[in-house]
Amino acid sequence: MRLSNIQQVEQLIERALAEDLGQGDVTTEALVSDDEQGKASITAKARGIIAGTEVAKQVFLKIDPQLKVDILVDDGVEVRPKNVIARIEGKCASILKAERVALNFLQHLSGIASETARYVKAIKGLPAQITDTRKTTPGLRALEKYAVAVGGGKNHRMHLGDGILIKDNHLSALRRQGLSMKEIVARARQETTNTLRIEIEVKTPQEAVEAADAGADVIMLDNMDLQDMRQAVRLVKGRAIIEASGGITLDRVRAVAKTGVDLISIGALTHSAKALDISLELE
Amino acid sequence: MRLSNIQQVEQLIERALAEDLGQGDVTTEALVSDDEQGKASITAKARGIIAGTEVAKQVFLKIDPQLKVDILVDDGVEVRPKNVIARIEGKCASILKAERVALNFLQHLSGIASETARYVKAIKGLPAQITDTRKTTPGLRALEKYAVAVGGGKNHRMHLGDGILIKDNHLSALRRQGLSMKEIVARARQETTNTLRIEIEVKTPQEAVEAADAGADVIMLDNMDLQDMRQAVRLVKGRAIIEASGGITLDRVRAVAKTGVDLISIGALTHSAKALDISLELE
Amino acid sequence: MRLSNIQQVEQLIERALAEDLGQGDVTTEALVSDDEQGKASITAKARGIIAGTEVAKQVFLKIDPQLKVDILVDDGVEVRPKNVIARIEGKCASILKAERVALNFLQHLSGIASETARYVKAIKGLPAQITDTRKTTPGLRALEKYAVAVGGGKNHRMHLGDGILIKDNHLSALRRQGLSMKEIVARARQETTNTLRIEIEVKTPQEAVEAADAGADVIMLDNMDLQDMRQAVRLVKGRAIIEASGGITLDRVRAVAKTGVDLISIGALTHSAKALDISLELE
Amino acid sequence: MRLSNIQQVEQLIERALAEDLGQGDVTTEALVSDDEQGKASITAKARGIIAGTEVAKQVFLKIDPQLKVDILVDDGVEVRPKNVIARIEGKCASILKAERVALNFLQHLSGIASETARYVKAIKGLPAQITDTRKTTPGLRALEKYAVAVGGGKNHRMHLGDGILIKDNHLSALRRQGLSMKEIVARARQETTNTLRIEIEVKTPQEAVEAADAGADVIMLDNMDLQDMRQAVRLVKGRAIIEASGGITLDRVRAVAKTGVDLISIGALTHSAKALDISLELE
Amino acid sequence: MRLSNIQQVEQLIERALAEDLGQGDVTTEALVSDDEQGKASITAKARGIIAGTEVAKQVFLKIDPQLKVDILVDDGVEVRPKNVIARIEGKCASILKAERVALNFLQHLSGIASETARYVKAIKGLPAQITDTRKTTPGLRALEKYAVAVGGGKNHRMHLGDGILIKDNHLSALRRQGLSMKEIVARARQETTNTLRIEIEVKTPQEAVEAADAGADVIMLDNMDLQDMRQAVRLVKGRAIIEASGGITLDRVRAVAKTGVDLISIGALTHSAKALDISLELE
Amino acid sequence: MRLSNIQQVEQLIERALAEDLGQGDVTTEALVSDDEQGKASITAKARGIIAGTEVAKQVFLKIDPQLKVDILVDDGVEVRPKNVIARIEGKCASILKAERVALNFLQHLSGIASETARYVKAIKGLPAQITDTRKTTPGLRALEKYAVAVGGGKNHRMHLGDGILIKDNHLSALRRQGLSMKEIVARARQETTNTLRIEIEVKTPQEAVEAADAGADVIMLDNMDLQDMRQAVRLVKGRAIIEASGGITLDRVRAVAKTGVDLISIGALTHSAKALDISLELE
Repeated sequence: MRLSNIQQVEQLIERALAEDLGQGDVTTEALVSDDEQGKASITAKARGIIAGTEVAKQVFLKIDPQLKVDILVDDGVEVRPKNVIARIEGKCASILKAERVALNFLQHLSGIASETARYVKAIKGLPAQITDTRKTTPGLRALEKYAVAVGGGKNHRMHLGDGILIKDNHLSALRRQGLSMKEIVARARQETTNTLRIEIEVKTPQEAVEAADAGADVIMLDNMDLQDMRQAVRLVKGRAIIEASGGITLDRVRAVAKTGVDLISIGALTHSAKALDISLELE
Repeated sequence: MRLSNIQQVEQLIERALAEDLGQGDVTTEALVSDDEQGKASITAKARGIIAGTEVAKQVFLKIDPQLKVDILVDDGVEVRPKNVIARIEGKCASILKAERVALNFLQHLSGIASETARYVKAIKGLPAQITDTRKTTPGLRALEKYAVAVGGGKNHRMHLGDGILIKDNHLSALRRQGLSMKEIVARARQETTNTLRIEIEVKTPQEAVEAADAGADVIMLDNMDLQDMRQAVRLVKGRAIIEASGGITLDRVRAVAKTGVDLISIGALTHSAKALDISLELE
Repeated sequence: MRLSNIQQVEQLIERALAEDLGQGDVTTEALVSDDEQGKASITAKARGIIAGTEVAKQVFLKIDPQLKVDILVDDGVEVRPKNVIARIEGKCASILKAERVALNFLQHLSGIASETARYVKAIKGLPAQITDTRKTTPGLRALEKYAVAVGGGKNHRMHLGDGILIKDNHLSALRRQGLSMKEIVARARQETTNTLRIEIEVKTPQEAVEAADAGADVIMLDNMDLQDMRQAVRLVKGRAIIEASGGITLDRVRAVAKTGVDLISIGALTHSAKALDISLELE
Repeated sequence: MRLSNIQQVEQLIERALAEDLGQGDVTTEALVSDDEQGKASITAKARGIIAGTEVAKQVFLKIDPQLKVDILVDDGVEVRPKNVIARIEGKCASILKAERVALNFLQHLSGIASETARYVKAIKGLPAQITDTRKTTPGLRALEKYAVAVGGGKNHRMHLGDGILIKDNHLSALRRQGLSMKEIVARARQETTNTLRIEIEVKTPQEAVEAADAGADVIMLDNMDLQDMRQAVRLVKGRAIIEASGGITLDRVRAVAKTGVDLISIGALTHSAKALDISLELE
Repeated sequence: MRLSNIQQVEQLIERALAEDLGQGDVTTEALVSDDEQGKASITAKARGIIAGTEVAKQVFLKIDPQLKVDILVDDGVEVRPKNVIARIEGKCASILKAERVALNFLQHLSGIASETARYVKAIKGLPAQITDTRKTTPGLRALEKYAVAVGGGKNHRMHLGDGILIKDNHLSALRRQGLSMKEIVARARQETTNTLRIEIEVKTPQEAVEAADAGADVIMLDNMDLQDMRQAVRLVKGRAIIEASGGITLDRVRAVAKTGVDLISIGALTHSAKALDISLELE
Repeated sequence: MRLSNIQQVEQLIERALAEDLGQGDVTTEALVSDDEQGKASITAKARGIIAGTEVAKQVFLKIDPQLKVDILVDDGVEVRPKNVIARIEGKCASILKAERVALNFLQHLSGIASETARYVKAIKGLPAQITDTRKTTPGLRALEKYAVAVGGGKNHRMHLGDGILIKDNHLSALRRQGLSMKEIVARARQETTNTLRIEIEVKTPQEAVEAADAGADVIMLDNMDLQDMRQAVRLVKGRAIIEASGGITLDRVRAVAKTGVDLISIGALTHSAKALDISLELE
């Protein structure tokens, strides 16, 4: 995934600026004259993976296209406290107005990239991949998924339109009608475009077999224990991609990866990552 | 603060739905017929304070105004695992489409309310108040500040237009011009409307005195140790409101409150709270 | 596909009304008083398949929620000249203002459904399916694809985000780098989410084999003659879905279907269908 | 008419791009690196009149302002198969992303211009003018009317606000009140601004006389046969502009023009023109 | 003109509310509970013509659809101090939030209607009509022109697209090319749709004759003295509509009307009318 | 206040242009070729203070970024008839299209600045300040408040979110509950952020004392006579800022200022100022 859908990012930046600056910045406007020039640096205050530098840069340029913004640390690079991430030069007032919004983006996205990287590191050497979910902060999904990719994760569905994922709530609705797993997959194939794969959520190794027999492309093992995961992998490996999901923690992720699953999806990457501590100082 | 600025919340919901459903829900549309009726319950899977039930309700109703949504737990109430927060009844397909977005709002806001409540509880019995900052997730500030209030916190500035807060970066720009604290406050008074108070960030007890002498309404003690905070309180208490800021943790917050400060502001309430675990099950 | 993404259709209707009524309807406002009640009927003036009745209804209700609009012919039904498709009752002025925009939608979509139905009928009894393309009228894609489905066609990709389709222009860019088909498919798998299938456009039966060997899920035979199509089908049938594309006409479509291809995609369904003649008369 | 109302065209382009690229271009993003440069040409594959080159150019530049787009064939010029219409140079990925939307505009508008030109050519040497109607594709009216002008047609009303056209449905509502044609025209004059002309639709030569006597500026002969048209022309020519409307085909248009009418309006120019076949190839 | 273009008025109301309430109403939210019910009356405090009651009503209903708003004085009616214009009943907080925006619309539009009515009254008994111009407050044109109509004026062009008005600045550009008035009018006829009339601005009676000879439908006498107006009327009356424009005051308007002109256009109706004094009181 | 919230001004300009040019400029498009270059000057035709030159400039540049616009008179400068305010050079057609909208902004804002300056001049030498209100033209508040500042006034609240102002309608709602002024102020303090001041509207000197005792930061004397104002000032001066409001005229303002009040707020600055006469001539 690339940060290329400019329009969407631009809108997010505009909204974030509207939220903070929609009524002006009374302090800066009262105190800092438009003539005042200055330099500022954005500095890491904790260890982590940086993500969102381009977004932060765009925030500054949106406020004042005359600002000179130099990114010193590219997205995906690890920083330690006191590392300078970027330098900004130009009108003081512009730097002060953009500061908070730029940092809010940068800290949030770097927090997600850092958390993802911790999981990726924890399974180092194993073939499984860490992936995200749709459990994202409302309005920020594209950026958050970008941050996951920056942290070394692989992106799962972006939204409800780019993949068929038949979850337990779908299955319970369908089984009331007496439909078998095979019939469910067949119906999904019939009713959707040929361009999408079909994934099914299962609770037991037996269901995993059933799903594979029905022709599912991807099988999600929902909240299984390690033993069940191993069995599911043994029974369906090679016939479908296998995804572990639910209750994955940093402590447990390596053991999960060792069961042989292909993907490990983790909601906490996007819904519970702590912001990375980063600050801006005028020189 | 009330959740009354409907227009803004409505837009947030629309954007979140567009993000997830802008290209339809291929799975549900392929598999679940429009005739299928169902019931679902939203259930807590962890302990915490609920916030955002009205937002979640609006998500469901935006997708399908015919859904019946009963909120069983009001915002501000503490839940334990297995407590049912809401029940939804109506078209299965509508419930499935709205599920993720509704939960994303509810989990995020409840996470913030829960984190706030932990800090509020930690200083119980002391006069200080927990307050938030502008370190919020881009685009979600109003809702996040609402969640802080639900958790028992007091809201600080909503944006750069509803309060004058002269921070270190402003001061460093102003002092280069040789302005004294008194001159800075006077200029702020002169240049802004009469309806806003003036707050100044200081690093030492001496600066706190200087700020009080200059006529600041609120003084922010930035990253001071407990001893300096106590001294600042002793020197300026009663002449201005005193706010402690920077490096506040759950472990340390009670000690900070005991120094006698009026407000304790904490960025982590909004930028690093974990989502509260909540799920939806179709019956 | 269902007409369920209400928000998008509503916006299209609003834009179409803004285009026609943004400056008012000077004639109706000058001549027809707001008291005047009336009845109107929408009548087919040619033979074809109706699509878009719900859209037309929404146009009337957007202008005046008090209008009573009865749809007598559902989408997908064939009409002949003089068949009454809908009746509207209420304020004359409202009916007159909405008339043209409602008919413009209904005629355009019914034209597409009718054209699709002609192709579907032409291959009756054969297993191939008629499918659309991204060659749609700018701004109207969702509705036009809906009309194709109403006419009996199957929808292909909705947009560039819900399917991987490696076209000749991609291949020519990639081959300059010396990549084999196998390497191209592998890279596509690596770089995208696991939820999407991979389709490749080929020019010869040999390339079709190469694509199948590389693991493509769908193979598009671009502008092949019937003999080449038959050979391609013989060589790869069962290993991938086969789509015929380019230069398909009503005269030729049955012969194409007989080659054994699974899908036949036709741009003309959406970019060159004639509007179905439909009129509105006040009684 | 000029293509000068930039804002509207820009919005149309943005919507069309949003429709196709709102979720990114997964294929190009997965396979084509941002370093890859390329050249492409847009080539006619059928004979016709080109319209919309500037729109197509703007589509490319919207995706990537760094692209170099050279228009080789101006709007209004006739092309034959293999004529190169434009050349594009720059990032391969950008060209691939913009290709379909640019072609969709160019093919649709060139189709309309070509169809218009066929009618204009058919009446060559006669004083009548070919004009369009409000039977346009929802959302695209301004561009479609521009294409009609490019093809040599004259534009009729853009919308319901820039001309008074009293149609049969208005008349039937008004006559129920016992109003004469004279009273209807007088009321229209009284109730509208002085800047607009008044046109009336009539069914018979006698009504045409009645309309001319009432002071109509333009008289529309609705679905008359040639004999009635000739009579209407004889009776009112010089007192009002005369427009023929309804059931005009390429075969019949010259005979209609020979009746002496001033304008011949044709809905099919905009609602039923086939797209002109045009393609883009990367070199 | 009717207040029927609901969409536009709704947007104006939304923007005005966003402007005042975009950050909430901190006073009302802090002090007035949502339970508190109340009654309020809107009362004239000066003499004038009321316009905009429906807009004011919509403002209240936008804030709170549960409010009961009774309009006691319809648009176009004259009020005197203490006349009650409307009564509102419902949630106190809602009334307080909507008050200022509702009054701002009502006072502004009533001010325009009142000023128009003063001019209309001044020429009572004479055949001339008072008309407005495009000198309106940015963003409010439609409403302001509605208020002029309420005050008894006739609307001139709504915008640059619904009438051809060749002003001195156009003429000076055209005459540099050596074009005669006749050639200018002919070109305007050729280049525009047949639905619009042609108006020309002239400075002398001789130019008025020239314009009439050239076939202008309307002739605007720009800043002429009474004698010149009389002469222009004598020379061209009956061949074109005559409009007096420029420097019209209440003192002078009757003398202008007596010259025999058909229309008198006055920019001050919309750009310089004083707001009518109107207030809201909670009972 | 600075004209720095670019986004909002840009939207206002876009709306104003859409209003006037949304359907094109049929006259200019028909008559003035795109090759035609020209020069124009904007000239004062009356005496007053100029405000809005940057807005006018942006209007021209929005229409045509190639125009050269030189501002000769900065905002805040006084002009006399025939003073040239700006010169524009470039495409004639662009100048003609932008003319009216640019002038509408410039005349409206200069009218407000001029009216404000008259009041400011009337109290010259006295310490009181002239301030505005929320009685502004819907949609134009920010610009109108900017014009007040240009004219020498001080801005009051921008909207309902940046200041607590407890008005008579709030008080009447609150007193029904038996709350004292002290309790009301305490509740306002409790329920709102610490960054806002509290202002109360009072009718008598006794109430002013009560408000000061309750801790109000600002006290608004509503419609008091001069004697009451003097008494209120004598009783509360120094304990709170005192604002006179209601019924202020140019004749009376100096007497009001002499009572010793700190602020004099005047709704007529924004709701009833006459446009300043300014014109544009092509050379």
